[in-house]
Formats: sequence, structure tokens, C-alpha cells
Amino acid sequence: MSWQFRLGSRARASPLRASVTRPNGLLLRPTALAGGLSAWSKSAPIMTRTQSTVSGKGLTLDNINQNVRAAKYAVRGELAVKAEEYRSRLTKGDKSLPFDSVIFANIGNPQQLDQKPITFFRQVLSLVENPLLLENPEALKNSFGYKQDVIDRAQALLADVRSVGAYSHSQGAPGIRNSVAKFIENRDGFPANPQDLFLTAGASSGVSTLLNVICDNPSAGVLVPIPQYPLYTATLSLLNARCVPYLLDEQKAWGTDIQVIEKSVADAKAEGTNVRSIVVINPGNPTGASLSADDIKQVIDIAAKEKLVIIADEVYQTNVFTGEFVSFKKRLRQLQQEFPGKYDNVELVSLHSTSKGMVGECGHRGGYFELVGFDPLVQEQIYKLVSIGLCPPVVAQCLLETMVNPPQKGDPSFETYQKEYSGIEGGLHKRALALYHAFQRMEGVECQEPQGAMYLFPTIHLPTKAVEAAEAEGRAADEFYALALLDATGVCVVPGSGFGQKPNTLHFRTTFLAPGTDWVERIVKFHSEFMSKYGGLNKAQL
Amino acid sequence: MSWQFRLGSRARASPLRASVTRPNGLLLRPTALAGGLSAWSKSAPIMTRTQSTVSGKGLTLDNINQNVRAAKYAVRGELAVKAEEYRSRLTKGDKSLPFDSVIFANIGNPQQLDQKPITFFRQVLSLVENPLLLENPEALKNSFGYKQDVIDRAQALLADVRSVGAYSHSQGAPGIRNSVAKFIENRDGFPANPQDLFLTAGASSGVSTLLNVICDNPSAGVLVPIPQYPLYTATLSLLNARCVPYLLDEQKAWGTDIQVIEKSVADAKAEGTNVRSIVVINPGNPTGASLSADDIKQVIDIAAKEKLVIIADEVYQTNVFTGEFVSFKKRLRQLQQEFPGKYDNVELVSLHSTSKGMVGECGHRGGYFELVGFDPLVQEQIYKLVSIGLCPPVVAQCLLETMVNPPQKGDPSFETYQKEYSGIEGGLHKRALALYHAFQRMEGVECQEPQGAMYLFPTIHLPTKAVEAAEAEGRAADEFYALALLDATGVCVVPGSGFGQKPNTLHFRTTFLAPGTDWVERIVKFHSEFMSKYGGLNKAQL
Repeated sequence: MSWQFRLGSRARASPLRASVTRPNGLLLRPTALAGGLSAWSKSAPIMTRTQSTVSGKGLTLDNINQNVRAAKYAVRGELAVKAEEYRSRLTKGDKSLPFDSVIFANIGNPQQLDQKPITFFRQVLSLVENPLLLENPEALKNSFGYKQDVIDRAQALLADVRSVGAYSHSQGAPGIRNSVAKFIENRDGFPANPQDLFLTAGASSGVSTLLNVICDNPSAGVLVPIPQYPLYTATLSLLNARCVPYLLDEQKAWGTDIQVIEKSVADAKAEGTNVRSIVVINPGNPTGASLSADDIKQVIDIAAKEKLVIIADEVYQTNVFTGEFVSFKKRLRQLQQEFPGKYDNVELVSLHSTSKGMVGECGHRGGYFELVGFDPLVQEQIYKLVSIGLCPPVVAQCLLETMVNPPQKGDPSFETYQKEYSGIEGGLHKRALALYHAFQRMEGVECQEPQGAMYLFPTIHLPTKAVEAAEAEGRAADEFYALALLDATGVCVVPGSGFGQKPNTLHFRTTFLAPGTDWVERIVKFHSEFMSKYGGLNKAQL
Repeated sequence: MSWQFRLGSRARASPLRASVTRPNGLLLRPTALAGGLSAWSKSAPIMTRTQSTVSGKGLTLDNINQNVRAAKYAVRGELAVKAEEYRSRLTKGDKSLPFDSVIFANIGNPQQLDQKPITFFRQVLSLVENPLLLENPEALKNSFGYKQDVIDRAQALLADVRSVGAYSHSQGAPGIRNSVAKFIENRDGFPANPQDLFLTAGASSGVSTLLNVICDNPSAGVLVPIPQYPLYTATLSLLNARCVPYLLDEQKAWGTDIQVIEKSVADAKAEGTNVRSIVVINPGNPTGASLSADDIKQVIDIAAKEKLVIIADEVYQTNVFTGEFVSFKKRLRQLQQEFPGKYDNVELVSLHSTSKGMVGECGHRGGYFELVGFDPLVQEQIYKLVSIGLCPPVVAQCLLETMVNPPQKGDPSFETYQKEYSGIEGGLHKRALALYHAFQRMEGVECQEPQGAMYLFPTIHLPTKAVEAAEAEGRAADEFYALALLDATGVCVVPGSGFGQKPNTLHFRTTFLAPGTDWVERIVKFHSEFMSKYGGLNKAQL
């Protein structure tokens, strides 16, 4: 490939403009972060100038937008690229690798692995893609098992969008937004207005839209949980805005700690950061944590006090194993009922997606966000911004509609839908537990019990010699470990440094989507050999 | 609706950060542009602060990102919103309007109007959406007329992407990029490398990616043709970069004039603009112009001399009525052969899309861009940037594959494909000519003969009284005219000010996609009445 990720010497000489506020309140630029001290140091692979640039070109590494250069995104970084190369070699019959398959546990991409799409969804989509099929409903039923509700749904969607090949309204087709509003009402018990809904090409594009509007200048700051999904820090880098990190508490199942958030806000303000917004990922990515109603109230309280826009990333809302998902919107509306007037100024965005849950339709790029409590004049600007991109993919809008409005009891497709949905749900939980139990068997690995989402994020304690070997290569120790794991087993995970982590801790994120248990055993065996190779843990670590 | 576009008093008191370099070389901010003097004054509706902002909110019109506020996008602005309201009223049975249908001639959205999708494309997409259909190929053939090549193609695409519900490679699925590379090779007679191809969610997202990388600071400037598709100026506003306009020559069929471009570059440099790139839309939007091989060479020459990245927006490359489309890539490769060494430093991006041509699949959001001559280290950064957004919609990638690799002579689906394709092509040309001839009949309207794309962009000369009436409403005269047209006839066009136009000229852009000729006659009748109402043209105008 002509592009490759490089590691090693960092671009310390180049000014990187994106800045990070450390948990202790010091505003630092990434280049100034010393080894081990910060959540951000030795982070994901960044691309560095390891060769002189081509002469005579208008664009060089040094004169492009340095915000782009500063952005980091480990999920598709060096490890993912290397894993893809291994996969390609195996496909071509290469027998020289010590494994026979690559396991992409780095990314929540269920249908790349074992997960089958839900039949109802895809039957409907096949009909909106080719409406000529609707001219022979009998053959659809007799030869392909399509039910009447599939046909009805496709016709209703086509009446709304006219053609999936036509641009829709910039916010998404009106009928589909009505369905989403009903879904939110049923979920929360409070009304939702289709005019406040913006359908998106996945949650990522929604986050980009919102941060673009919120971040008004380089002193603007956004509270981001650590660890976090790196979309947030990457987008803030692109916007030359400040990440104000707040650490999640691993010992309390990765919950939010309101005092930690308050301190982060105070420290950031003290150094001149204008804190505009707080991101909450619930259920958590990469942590899998699920917030309680009380946790959510505390976040809303601080948002009301500090006038922070709450960005509630709720894309894993159906991936909850223990307890019950509580949406920020529901909790806000409850508080507004309970304390009239007190929460009127709160601005909330809730994001959802077709990529996660039991749907897992990442490749379709669908989702929505709901604006709650926004100034109508600001909402107009958000409309204008999304209209420049024309509209989200219309097939994905149709998929979203089937996700929020699935077959109900009594509908012809209900039984199959229910069976498929439960099968996926049960499989995810089962694999999460299998992985969790495997981690319990591994020396120096600690892991919170799986609560939700698609990930586990265990702590790893590594032998001193391994940490030294990593340093000698100019790598973070967890990155060194993850790379060794990939090279030895074909299992691709993401080092904790790609998400941010508490100083002096190491983690990795793995999905629990891959089928079977063979790959879990590969990790167990590798880990044992790795620990032996580097002399095991010392007494203080045990 | 809770959001609405407002017109009237402009937000003159608010600092708008995006700036525009006038053709005469003066750097101006939009608020400082006086009436009629600039291509940018009295432009598309912008949203203005006509009511006080909601109290106590964190986000107000004045403290959001002012680059967002400054961005303008007329294609989906006030007129489009009003047209949508009329459509909605008609649907609900409202009989009070003076027309019985709304004609969306404001946007190149063929399938919202008459155009049927091409059967081969949609048959393939129905199978990739529901691969279970492939289990009964006989029924597909017998009951639905699917041919073997449809089935084969769907299977090949599924082998490449695994599932359209899985994320693909950030640049797009490898096999699909191979097909695109072959298409480019066949078109140009020069090789293309799949690793230099980035599949996109429509050309718009590609433009956003590229301008994000190119614009490194507020003094960065990008040459943009005037008139232009407003995506370019809107994106530059969002990036707080400078638009360096160069006027196209209406009298020379809207061609480029190299001396005009050179003067724009010189003027921009003189005032401290770092000119980084030149946008060329070929065939032109909104002009429909088609550039000759010589015109293209001149642009390449100036790009080589000034180290400008050429952004060749070639989404209308198959919509050419006269002559033959010449790609920038082909011309560049020819020049590199002819003059070894002289053009080695040229950096070119060519954008294409599934939304236009005879495909017209806007709602799918598909496309690609090809990088030519980029520094590999810069290309790495572009890869990283697109990877943050994960991947383009996979169904749209499959559609792109069928577009660049359609059935060939001898293939079972060829005849139908060919018939449908030619039918659309012929229909577009026929309607373009009908509209052109109608404009010839209209007093004070001048129009270049249709050459390509999906648009006509006639000049309109309006009576002095009409211009005064527009001024009294605080509107640009062409906007006033377009609004009157919509109110009287239901035909929605976009005023020329939304694209930029030479000082003291007025235009509008209309697509020629709508079926039939009734709507053309509505325009003719309205125009005649409008001219009479405002006292007709004076002698100097005739």
C-alpha cells in the first residue's frame, strides 16, 4: 500500500495545534505530554514524518491543516491496518503465519463476524431497493417467504420517500421521523417532536455536526470521559477545540463521579477554557458501563448549573445486560416535572444508531439525533449545516424506520423477528461472559463484570521487562502488548491508550462479537507465554 | 415547523468570519459587500437574528461557531423550504393555491421527479440487501425477470463486502475500488491505482474532506468559479478559509478564461492570501458548460506554476450533449507524456458521484475521489481523516460498482440496460432543448445553448420597478423574481445570487429534469405577466 502508519519517533518538532486539558488541570499540548504522566501520552499511532516530503508539491505534511495531522483515531490505526494485511495474506494462501484466521476484535462490526442481519429488515430493504418486486407479491410470499407486513412496510416507506434514489429532506424523510418520534415516546413516556429529529449517516456524522456548532473558538472546551471512544477527541482536534477529560471510576464499574467532573470543570475554567458541553457515552464505550438514574441526574445537574450542552451518546441503549437503560431525555423530563422551572435551560442531544444493538447494520450508516431544549435560532443553523451535506443515505433511513418500528406481536413477521433478536442478544451476553471468565483466569488481568455495549476493557499489569522493551521501541506498553498479541494469534484488539486511561494504568479494548471460543483461548495462551517471556509480575504487582 | 428561514434585515451587526476575495482583488467580508457590487452581495437567504434568543441557554446564535452561521447554501434555502410547504399543503388537499403541483427544479434530484432507476442496478442491490433471495435463483428469473448476470454480480459484491451491514475498509471495499480503477483506465487510457481511490458518501463529503486537509489557516484561499455550486463557498466558510472567485465567461459559453484566473491569483496574493487550490466544475454547475482539452490544459498550467491542488468536480461527466468529456486526469497524463518532467508536481483530485449522470441515485449517497500526484504522507493523513468517519455507505459502494461496471454487449441484462440508459439520456437532452427554446421566447431572458450537466442558467433582465420592489423588501432582485415565480406557479428555481454572478447581472438556475412541458409553459406565462406588472424593460435593456 502506498500509505502506511508509522511509529517510532514522534513529530515533536512540529507544532500540533489541538490541545488537551489534563485531569489535574494543566493545559497541555500533546507534544508536551511526558511518558506515562497523562491519559494522552503515548497514545494511538500517529503518523509522523519519517521521510522527507516529495519535493515540489503544493501539499506537504507541514503545510496541510495541522488539526488534521494532530487528530488520532486508534480504532482504525496501525493495528487495524496490520490485521487487514494479515487477513489478505491468509486469503492468498500464505501459510507462514502462526494462525489461520484474523479476529477483528478491534471494532464493533458484528456482520463482519458471525452476526446475521435480521430478516425482516433486509426483506423490507430489498423491496425498497427494487420496487418492481412488489408487482408479484404472490411469488414473494411463496418462493421467498416474505410476509404481508414486509410488503406493507415497503409500500409505506416508498410512499414516504418516493424513491430511495431521491434526496430526502435534509433532516430525513418526514414519515420516518414520525416513526422515530413514536419510538422515543414509547421508550420514555414523554413526547418527541419529529421536527427536533435529525436523521444521520451513523452517529459519527451527528457528533461531527454538533461539535462543529458548539466549538466556537480555540478556547472552547468539551468534557469527554476517559476512557472514551476516540471519535470525540479526534473531532475536537479537527476543530482545534479543547478536550476537557474527566476520569471514569474503574473501581465503581466505570461510573461517572460527579466530584471528578466538577473538578475538571473548575480546573479547565481556571486556565481559561470556556467549557461548553459534556459528552456522556451510556452504555459506555469502551467500558461497557451502564449509568444509573442517579448518575444521570448528577450529570444533568452540573449541565444545568454550568450551561453545558449534554451530548448523550446512547448508541448502545439496547445492549444492556444488567439493570435497565435510562435515557437522558427521560430523566430530564422527569426532573422537569418534579422541579418545575429548575431544568428549563438544559440543552440535550441524544444520539442513536442502526450500527449497534441487535441490529448491527454498521455498513448502512444510519442513525439520528434528537435536540431537546435548543434555541430555535441555533436549531436553524444546525439545519443549514446538515443541508450542505444534502441528506443521510435514504436506504439507511428506511432501515432506521424498521429498527424503531419492528414487527409487533400478532404481525406475521413477529415470531421470526423475535427469535432472531433474542438469539443475537443471548449470544452477545454468552460471549461477554465467556471472555470475562477467561480474563479472570489470566495473571495480572482485572476486568469489570460485563454490563452492556459490545466491549470489555480489562486492566493489564505487565512485567517490568515488557514495559522496558516497549519503551525501547518507542511504544506505549499496552500498544506493545496488543501488537505482540496480533502477531502471535491474529487477534486484533485496541490498546487502552487509544481511548485514554488513568496515568500508570494499562488496558485494552476487545469486542465480544467474534463467534466461538477458540480465539479467547488464543488470548489466554498468548498472555501466559508473554508473561513468562518477560519474567512475570514482581511482588508489588501481585 | 420550529425552524424557518428568515429574510429581511441582515445581521450586519454580527461579525461574520468567513471572507471572500472579490474578483477585483479586494478582500471583503460578506457583511461589507454593498448591494450589486459583488458576486456575493444579496446572496442566498441567510438566517438572521430577528428575535431575541431564548434566555438561559448555553448555545445562542451569537456564541455558536460563527463560521457555521456565515455559511450559505441556497439550494436548500428559503425557496426550497417554502416549496416543500406548498407541496405538503397540496398533498393535504389544499385548493387555495394557484397551481396543482410543485415542480422542484431547484435541485438535481431526478428520482424525485420522473426518472426511473436503472433496473440492473436495483436488481443487484435488492440481492445484496437480502442475500436469502439468492437461495432461489429460479424464482428470481421466472417470477421477476432477474438475469444470470444480476445474480453473478450480487454474489461477487457479497464476496467482496461480506455483508452490506458490515463496515468496509475506510477507503471503500477493495474489489469495488478495483472496478473503479478499471473504469478510469478505460475512460482515460491511463492506469489508475485502487490505493489512490477513496469511495465517498456522495461528492459533497469528498469535497469537505479535501478542503479540510488543504485549508491550513485563515489566510488559505481556494479559487472557485463564479457562478459555482455553493457547496464550495459554504465549506470554505465552515473552515474559515478564503474563497478566491474567478468569473466564468458567459459570452464564451461559460468557459474558463485563463487571464481572469491569473488576475484572481495575483490579486489574492497581493492581499496576503495563500492560494492553495483551484476548483473546476466540469461539466459546469450551475452553467452546464463543458470545457475543451485546451481550457483544461490552461488550468493545469496555472496549477503547475502556482502549486495549486486541482479539485476537478467531474460529477456530470456523462451529462454531455455536445463534444466529448475530457477528464483532468487524462489531460494531465497526456501532458506528462508530452513534456516529461514539466508536470510532475501537479496534484489533482477528481470527484465522481452516483447521484448524477443517467444514474441519478442521489439518495444512495455514493461516489469516489481519485488522488493523483499526492505526497504519500499527505495521503496518509487523508486516510486517517476519512477513517474517523468509518466508511461510506456500503450499499452505495455496491451501486457505484454497478455504475462503473455496467452490463456489456452480450451480457443478458445489456439490452434493457442500454435501452433505459439511452432513454434517460435522450429525455434529458430533449427537455433541455425545450426549456432552452422557451427561454428564447421570453422577453429579457438570454440563455446559452445547453451543453451538459442538468441545468440551465439564463440571464434575466428585469424591469426597474421590479428591482425597486425587491429592494423595498430587502431582497436581491433575482431572489424576488424566483419567489414570485414559486408563489404564482409552484415552480421552484434557485436565484443566481445563490451561486454568485457577475456584478449587475441576474440569473436563475433551473434543472431540466421535470417531466412534460406544462411547467415550462407556466414559467413562460408567469414571466410575461411579471414583466407587464412591473412595466417592462426600458430602452437601454432591450
